[in-house]
Amino acid sequence: MSTPKETPLMEKIVSLCKRRGFIFQSSEIYGGINGFWDYGPLGAELKRNVKDLWWRSMTRMREDVVGLDATIIMHPNIWKASGHVDTFTDPMLDCKTCKGRFRADQINEIPCPQKPSKCVNQCEGEKTEPRPFNLMFTTHVGPIADDDNVAYLRPETAQAIFAQFKNVVDSSRVKIPFGIAQVGKAFRNEVTPRNFTFRSREFEQMELEFFIKPDEVVHKQHGGVAQLGVDGHPGEPQPNWGWQLWHKYWVEERIRFYEGIGLPRTSLAEYWQSKEELAHYAKACVDILYKFPFGTQELEGIAARGDFDLAQHQKHSGKSQEYFDQEAATKYVPHVIEPSAGADRLVLALLCEAFFEEQTTDEKGKTETRTVLRFHPRIAPVKVGIFPLLKNKPELVAKAREVFETLRPSMNVFYDEGGSIGKRYARQDEAGTPFGVTIDFDTLGENGPDLKETVTLRHRDTQAQERVPISKLLGRILPLVS
Amino acid sequence: MSTPKETPLMEKIVSLCKRRGFIFQSSEIYGGINGFWDYGPLGAELKRNVKDLWWRSMTRMREDVVGLDATIIMHPNIWKASGHVDTFTDPMLDCKTCKGRFRADQINEIPCPQKPSKCVNQCEGEKTEPRPFNLMFTTHVGPIADDDNVAYLRPETAQAIFAQFKNVVDSSRVKIPFGIAQVGKAFRNEVTPRNFTFRSREFEQMELEFFIKPDEVVHKQHGGVAQLGVDGHPGEPQPNWGWQLWHKYWVEERIRFYEGIGLPRTSLAEYWQSKEELAHYAKACVDILYKFPFGTQELEGIAARGDFDLAQHQKHSGKSQEYFDQEAATKYVPHVIEPSAGADRLVLALLCEAFFEEQTTDEKGKTETRTVLRFHPRIAPVKVGIFPLLKNKPELVAKAREVFETLRPSMNVFYDEGGSIGKRYARQDEAGTPFGVTIDFDTLGENGPDLKETVTLRHRDTQAQERVPISKLLGRILPLVS
Repeated sequence: MSTPKETPLMEKIVSLCKRRGFIFQSSEIYGGINGFWDYGPLGAELKRNVKDLWWRSMTRMREDVVGLDATIIMHPNIWKASGHVDTFTDPMLDCKTCKGRFRADQINEIPCPQKPSKCVNQCEGEKTEPRPFNLMFTTHVGPIADDDNVAYLRPETAQAIFAQFKNVVDSSRVKIPFGIAQVGKAFRNEVTPRNFTFRSREFEQMELEFFIKPDEVVHKQHGGVAQLGVDGHPGEPQPNWGWQLWHKYWVEERIRFYEGIGLPRTSLAEYWQSKEELAHYAKACVDILYKFPFGTQELEGIAARGDFDLAQHQKHSGKSQEYFDQEAATKYVPHVIEPSAGADRLVLALLCEAFFEEQTTDEKGKTETRTVLRFHPRIAPVKVGIFPLLKNKPELVAKAREVFETLRPSMNVFYDEGGSIGKRYARQDEAGTPFGVTIDFDTLGENGPDLKETVTLRHRDTQAQERVPISKLLGRILPLVS
Repeated sequence: MSTPKETPLMEKIVSLCKRRGFIFQSSEIYGGINGFWDYGPLGAELKRNVKDLWWRSMTRMREDVVGLDATIIMHPNIWKASGHVDTFTDPMLDCKTCKGRFRADQINEIPCPQKPSKCVNQCEGEKTEPRPFNLMFTTHVGPIADDDNVAYLRPETAQAIFAQFKNVVDSSRVKIPFGIAQVGKAFRNEVTPRNFTFRSREFEQMELEFFIKPDEVVHKQHGGVAQLGVDGHPGEPQPNWGWQLWHKYWVEERIRFYEGIGLPRTSLAEYWQSKEELAHYAKACVDILYKFPFGTQELEGIAARGDFDLAQHQKHSGKSQEYFDQEAATKYVPHVIEPSAGADRLVLALLCEAFFEEQTTDEKGKTETRTVLRFHPRIAPVKVGIFPLLKNKPELVAKAREVFETLRPSMNVFYDEGGSIGKRYARQDEAGTPFGVTIDFDTLGENGPDLKETVTLRHRDTQAQERVPISKLLGRILPLVS
């Protein structure tokens, strides 16, 4: 007997995502479109939860951050000021034989379209010199499609925040230090999208621009700038913090966020860019990485960008981006700390982290594979599955419907009366539903008054079951899912 | 004394939107970009609330609707199948003198760029014949920008739902009748964007495609199709409903939604398209209109589209879009009822409906204009303003912070200690905050034990004030805002 070949983990996850409606290929019935992915019913709820938790932790739970929701298409000069028009490029070369265009830094990996046994670099076709290829998608706004009307799909949400910095300051009574948060789609015409949803051409970002005083101003006001202490979270923000402490603060805040939604610190890694790797304007940049099955890759970058962006917009727009600091009695262009996270890659990390298979043996001795998505209850698309033991007993169904209606206004619940109770549990395990509630004859009081009006509460991960009075169910579950 | 010229209502609303951070012109520091608008801190919260309530009422509170979150860029053949590539056009003509391009149906309104006293139709410039101009924004996907790689920014979110119909059916245990809901950006290269955010080039839709049995199948199964009764809501869905009852049901459901967030039925109008106005495939279409200051205009269209869309995708993709109906023991391409709403125009309607000015006279006899946004508490960006009577009394501040921390996990609250209490109330009135909580010396028990640990709860619209124990505040306010 040969050992069956083990399906690689990513293949299993991709397959589950399609089968259970987490993620579909965009336009699949037309053969798909490379680098674009849709979220199905469960995936849409999962992603909503992730974005809502980010927004909640960034805006509602903080008094020093406000929100923004800007357009994807903006004035093209924004991308001249930001440097994207000139430098947001990959080097590409063309093959004069097959007419293909390839990323110059990948010609040793990509197979030749005409001789797939050879890579592009090895085939005989004559290649052009590499030329820069801009990753921004272009379009035209207005009725005439000429160079004067070119516009870009934003390659990041951040620049809209800088462009609206003054309007926010003028309308919102914010005082430095403060941040502006935004969640929204961004687009990059990646030449080689890959790793499922990790590197796609249309994706969603969750970005914060946190504006702080320049160190010189802190120094003048407080006689010095607080020094970076030992490792760990630097605690509550203090007036004498400079950029280094703010940067460290945001790195730790963001890691705590990930821990709070089910990515333990051991599943993450920090990568501090070296001086040589940093962009010329950046003072520091930390990547928070997740240990994906296909490699340890970036979830979020947290950069200390100085005053680069606002100064560039000041120069290109001719509009002052200075902030008048009443306490410090001075004007300055604020500096920025930018925690910039990808919503889609975070969803993918959460799926990878949650995916779990175990062998179970049923009462007849048959071995089966149990697939469970061990989502943190906060992000789980469905919070509770509600099951009448039998669907042909009207009293069970009526009581189950009553439980359903009790929980539904407060959380996403799923009512299921089809198939054996074991099958229904299994379906919800695969969907990542953390709790199951079964309404049985004990609930109806048929086995004595003690268990009347109680239900079985099943926990997805341990499969432990307990009896809980219906009257206490909401109070029991709600704190666990919010 | 001359009567001051009354500022038109829309101008006042636009001005308030900018001043208080509801809506900014996109890219304003670069002179703006016509037809694009950003939501500032208050606007972003307002719009989030509107979209969240739509999503909640459509998906969580219904067992017959699931969600989807698809990409903006899809396979171009989707727009060939839907008819958008061929027919989503406005007629345009060029002027050979000024080189301008104009909508042929607007040449009697648009001023000539060279002789603005005349309209385009009156000036001497020689005009071309009108030609169709497609309203879809185009771009190119992949490294080569040729005709083979053209893609479109979706002009509506609906088609993604049709394209993923089969994947949703196969992954989600849904049974007809059921719907798929989606919220997301769409883009139309409008030649003349206008009326603030009402007609813009980038906007957000909230669309439901609700799939039903064809009338023939209902007839076969139930011996007939239920007849449309008298006016009003037809009640709970029934198995023998055909498209007419489903259509009527959704019109009434949607009006109830608008009523529930602060647009009374009297502020709305229904427009039933006549046979001549209907698209060739549509069986009926109702527009729900709102009485904007600039005219009575569409918020939502509710169309009975038959099987047009799925049949088109079946034809163009070559993939069957048939659904096997177990109960009816037959296969069919489902028919569709489509309630399609615009999130931005709804936000604008809510701003217009909420905007209210009144003359007030203070204790010194000075008359002032009080501006209030009377938002329904469900959609208000901030739910409660929290005010210590004085900011230099640490006990008042500490107690106010305690109240703040009690409410914050459950709703958006705003702490404000700056300026007179009257000014603070006025600022929150203008932001549309429905409740104010003031912490005063009574709260501290300084005027006797009776009022200790109570606060003043102020109601925005009536300006009525009442004393409420701190311990009862959350329970009092939470049901009113959710």
